[in-house]
Amino acid sequence: MQTALGLAAMAKGKTNPNPLVGAVIVKEGRIIGQGAHLRAGLPHAEVHAFHMAGDEAEGATLYVTLEPCSHHGRTPPCADLVIRSKVQRVVVAMLDPNPMVAGRGVTRIREAGIKVDVGVLEQEALKLNERFIHNMLAKRPFVTVKTAMTLDGKIAAHTGDSRWVTGAESRAYVHQLRDHADGILVGIGTVLADDPELTTRLPEGGGKNPVRIVLDRTLRTPETAKVADTAQAKTWILTGPDADAAKSERLRERGVEVIPVPLGADGLDLGGVLDVLFARGITDLLVEGGAAVNGAFLQAGLINKVISFIAPKLIGGAAPTPYGGAGFDQMADAVELADWTVERFGDDLCLTGYPKRTEV
Amino acid sequence: MQTALGLAAMAKGKTNPNPLVGAVIVKEGRIIGQGAHLRAGLPHAEVHAFHMAGDEAEGATLYVTLEPCSHHGRTPPCADLVIRSKVQRVVVAMLDPNPMVAGRGVTRIREAGIKVDVGVLEQEALKLNERFIHNMLAKRPFVTVKTAMTLDGKIAAHTGDSRWVTGAESRAYVHQLRDHADGILVGIGTVLADDPELTTRLPEGGGKNPVRIVLDRTLRTPETAKVADTAQAKTWILTGPDADAAKSERLRERGVEVIPVPLGADGLDLGGVLDVLFARGITDLLVEGGAAVNGAFLQAGLINKVISFIAPKLIGGAAPTPYGGAGFDQMADAVELADWTVERFGDDLCLTGYPKRTEV
Repeated sequence: MQTALGLAAMAKGKTNPNPLVGAVIVKEGRIIGQGAHLRAGLPHAEVHAFHMAGDEAEGATLYVTLEPCSHHGRTPPCADLVIRSKVQRVVVAMLDPNPMVAGRGVTRIREAGIKVDVGVLEQEALKLNERFIHNMLAKRPFVTVKTAMTLDGKIAAHTGDSRWVTGAESRAYVHQLRDHADGILVGIGTVLADDPELTTRLPEGGGKNPVRIVLDRTLRTPETAKVADTAQAKTWILTGPDADAAKSERLRERGVEVIPVPLGADGLDLGGVLDVLFARGITDLLVEGGAAVNGAFLQAGLINKVISFIAPKLIGGAAPTPYGGAGFDQMADAVELADWTVERFGDDLCLTGYPKRTEV
Repeated sequence: MQTALGLAAMAKGKTNPNPLVGAVIVKEGRIIGQGAHLRAGLPHAEVHAFHMAGDEAEGATLYVTLEPCSHHGRTPPCADLVIRSKVQRVVVAMLDPNPMVAGRGVTRIREAGIKVDVGVLEQEALKLNERFIHNMLAKRPFVTVKTAMTLDGKIAAHTGDSRWVTGAESRAYVHQLRDHADGILVGIGTVLADDPELTTRLPEGGGKNPVRIVLDRTLRTPETAKVADTAQAKTWILTGPDADAAKSERLRERGVEVIPVPLGADGLDLGGVLDVLFARGITDLLVEGGAAVNGAFLQAGLINKVISFIAPKLIGGAAPTPYGGAGFDQMADAVELADWTVERFGDDLCLTGYPKRTEV
């Protein structure tokens, strides 16, 4: 199963909106087939594995990281393929949270007389597919907020200078995160202050450019902004209803999509923003906002995962912190993180964790 | 030598202003004597070790974490004791930075025909005695700034509520730090906002209360403040020249020492503060200030060590960060930390490091 999870993980960010799945077929202690799901529309992991195993699959054991599907999607049901293969036993890491499957795959295989064990390395499988599971249950993108601050909590000097808080290794990792995401979201403040490109620049080249998404209620994005150049990557600007129509038109001529979204009590309604983005195919959203945008996501309880870089340096002065907004009134009300881990990237620390309290 | 370092470390915080020293005497692979310096005025480590070894010391090897002294202090020179003991060889971790010794102890022993090796586990010994070395070279207290913040860089909620940023394990460690320090320093802002007790409360009881030192230029410390109650611990209030004389007198009647110090460009001159504190016997100063005091120490380049707790929680809002003050203008000017390490205390992270740039 560890091998299957490893196979699955190799396609990270490439299978959206589908899950990451790996499969390994073992007979008499020997691997006779293996496969992974590589991209939506391409065959499922089990198909590759059974193709490799051929007739040898009879009497073997299939290890698969996600319950084989029971429905006709773009490909036929894998549960039927499993039954036809005449394997003796199936080991599944986790059930498929897709309401169209949700145990039906396992049931169908068991009804055909094949022994099925569920829950082997389940925690690892749940983590591997955290994005897919959230998509299925909440019908919204999985929201990861990435921040970088000094050891005294600042994202910039008091002058606004912020190049660079973190070192080269941390910044390279951010480009990996972008490569895995469908969308990267910032506020208009970041566009005006830093004029970022928001593209994926992997050290080895290549990589996928996520859709660049700007929260810009009053449509202040300059037509000369780097994100308004859509030669490399798509840009969607989310605005309120009173955005300047002529400016919208000029931005559209540059290839930018200007998308009106509902207003909330304080700016754009973030729940509505996520609904719009999910409907448009964004399953994995990387938020790289400033204090205002990150704080608004925090306050709304819409963060699924945080990735916080901490550079071991002290800048002093009064400067924005990674999460602003209104803030909670009591320290006891702070949003705690669960399952957090710490990694080192060059000279920086990176803490990754999951808010214990979310709205959805 | 590792054993000797371990013996030395056990007296941490108890030997001030003296260094931490451990000694082990080994003969034919067997420890025949060991000792540590336990408190200023009590015998040096070598004396204990030779006392234990007795006549057996002849022909043995002495491992000692610090060069044996060559001068008459409160006790006679250890170098002479070493020579009289007729050991065959002496292994020293580091030379004594005390200008009255500084290699003279080793020279004297070598001149007596005993082989001396210097520099075994020297890095560990230098770290063990970082406080003492700074005292000797800078003639000032070793300044450690301890802070605690959320993962979004705040020391409180936007309302000022700060109980608690960190968990019980972290707070217990802070009491250990206090137990090891001679003085604990805060600004008047912290006294007015939190009215802290600033005493040492170890989980197992006991512990040493450092002198409580308040930077209070205009003598605003309330007579009813907890730090003005000197039944448990001493309090020194450092003021500017224009402090209210009648209030000074009333605080003095409560046992508080009110000490005028020189003014700098912006409040009390921190270099002058450290000079006054060192002259009064403070060798190890723990700064537990708010943003203003910590920021001022940072800006002045007077921090020797930082201990930064990070609680994996997000509070949002606009609230003070651990280091305020004027701040450096460019991110490239931030003070980087060297030799930093990360530990976990309960649910918190704690990063300890040494500013690469200091004035002294």
